[in-house]
Amino acid sequence: MGRVKAVVAYDGTNFSGYQSQPGMRTVQSEIDKALVKIHKDKSVHSVASGRTDAGVHANGQVIHFDTPLTLKEERWQMALNVLLPTDIRIVNVCYVDENFHARYSATGKTYIFKWSYASVHSPFERNYSVHLGKWRPDVEKMKEAAKYLIGTYDFTSFCSAKTATSNRVRTVRLLTLERHDDELIMTIEGDGFLYNMVRTIAGMLLAVGKGWHQPEEVKEILALKDRQAASKTAPAHGLYLENVTYDHDNLSK
Amino acid sequence: MGRVKAVVAYDGTNFSGYQSQPGMRTVQSEIDKALVKIHKDKSVHSVASGRTDAGVHANGQVIHFDTPLTLKEERWQMALNVLLPTDIRIVNVCYVDENFHARYSATGKTYIFKWSYASVHSPFERNYSVHLGKWRPDVEKMKEAAKYLIGTYDFTSFCSAKTATSNRVRTVRLLTLERHDDELIMTIEGDGFLYNMVRTIAGMLLAVGKGWHQPEEVKEILALKDRQAASKTAPAHGLYLENVTYDHDNLSK
Repeated sequence: MGRVKAVVAYDGTNFSGYQSQPGMRTVQSEIDKALVKIHKDKSVHSVASGRTDAGVHANGQVIHFDTPLTLKEERWQMALNVLLPTDIRIVNVCYVDENFHARYSATGKTYIFKWSYASVHSPFERNYSVHLGKWRPDVEKMKEAAKYLIGTYDFTSFCSAKTATSNRVRTVRLLTLERHDDELIMTIEGDGFLYNMVRTIAGMLLAVGKGWHQPEEVKEILALKDRQAASKTAPAHGLYLENVTYDHDNLSK
Repeated sequence: MGRVKAVVAYDGTNFSGYQSQPGMRTVQSEIDKALVKIHKDKSVHSVASGRTDAGVHANGQVIHFDTPLTLKEERWQMALNVLLPTDIRIVNVCYVDENFHARYSATGKTYIFKWSYASVHSPFERNYSVHLGKWRPDVEKMKEAAKYLIGTYDFTSFCSAKTATSNRVRTVRLLTLERHDDELIMTIEGDGFLYNMVRTIAGMLLAVGKGWHQPEEVKEILALKDRQAASKTAPAHGLYLENVTYDHDNLSK
């Protein structure tokens, strides 16, 4: 009974994104369908930390919902996982204070973006990383470019032209590039991200790595506040919502 | 020009098995479609080392086909990978002697079977390993049972009741179980395998690991030559055709 917080992982491949849309298979609609079953056909809606686009994955999406039921936390996890399709898994459940809000209480988010160096892109990785093909990007230059994006800036140049939000000032706290075996992994952490912001940054950094732009140009592009100035948005299937952070106060009841 | 051998990897999830069937999406039909395109609509058929069932994956399936074209080996790989869907990849191509036959020249095959110990089965692994749920099988007992299956035996108890072949004597050269992180991996190598043989062995060994059978019983079940005696066939999506071996003589022209 009360407000429940759940951490959700999903393979975004076969979803038309996170948010419910009539006639589409979305992560939210599958979760809400499972919640309605558990509540014996009473309508229950979950609220997420934010949407993700079609093809984008999550290891640590966070949702909340309110319930009159008195199930224990581990029973919630089990009941939801029995009802959900196997491309969505509940990895953690806890009761939280009723002031907790999956979206409004979030203090930060971490995303990762994966590229593959493999000479032939494994069929098992085709939906989970973006193949670099014959490209061997200059990772040191990408790291140099990344430095210009750490801090508090107006990210108009690095979000979709369709972004509805007028305040486009965001803080990027961390932006790293690391090579692990056959993969190049970008990790980005910030207080929040604009629509397509992470994928635009990934696309821009890769363009620097390919030598199409110099690292310093990223600083200029940021100052222009013009989406046209930055490079192409990177494909959705390389992107993962890894983690959403909250103040400790809100976390458990 | 001549006979071409190719090593093929595929994610079996979205295929109705390897072999061409009218109206079905199969690995063979996709490969043959690509070959026909490269040969400007002349019919070309590939021959594989053997079929795999719906859901079964491959890292090292082997095929051969004959061609009048004079493409270089790396051009064959590139041309096929451009035309094939991304859940099939050609990982290697070489010209071979015309006596080479993907099926009849094979001297051995290696399969692996993967189970997952994860408390929650990752949505990214759902099609690539079989979840053990709450089970923590006794791997030492599974290893003990495995010893009874190494050698040359009539494997009637460990193949599908639908097996057409009358000679069911096969040699298992190697059968190991190893834990890697969150996975339990069975590796089996032999001169050839009967229909469903690897999955029946995987199912039997897991039943021993769960304590439903004693390791020694595997010896008795083998002697019975009766499919009813052994345990349930393990699910297809844990199985991978890893490698097919050939005599060196046949390998390159």
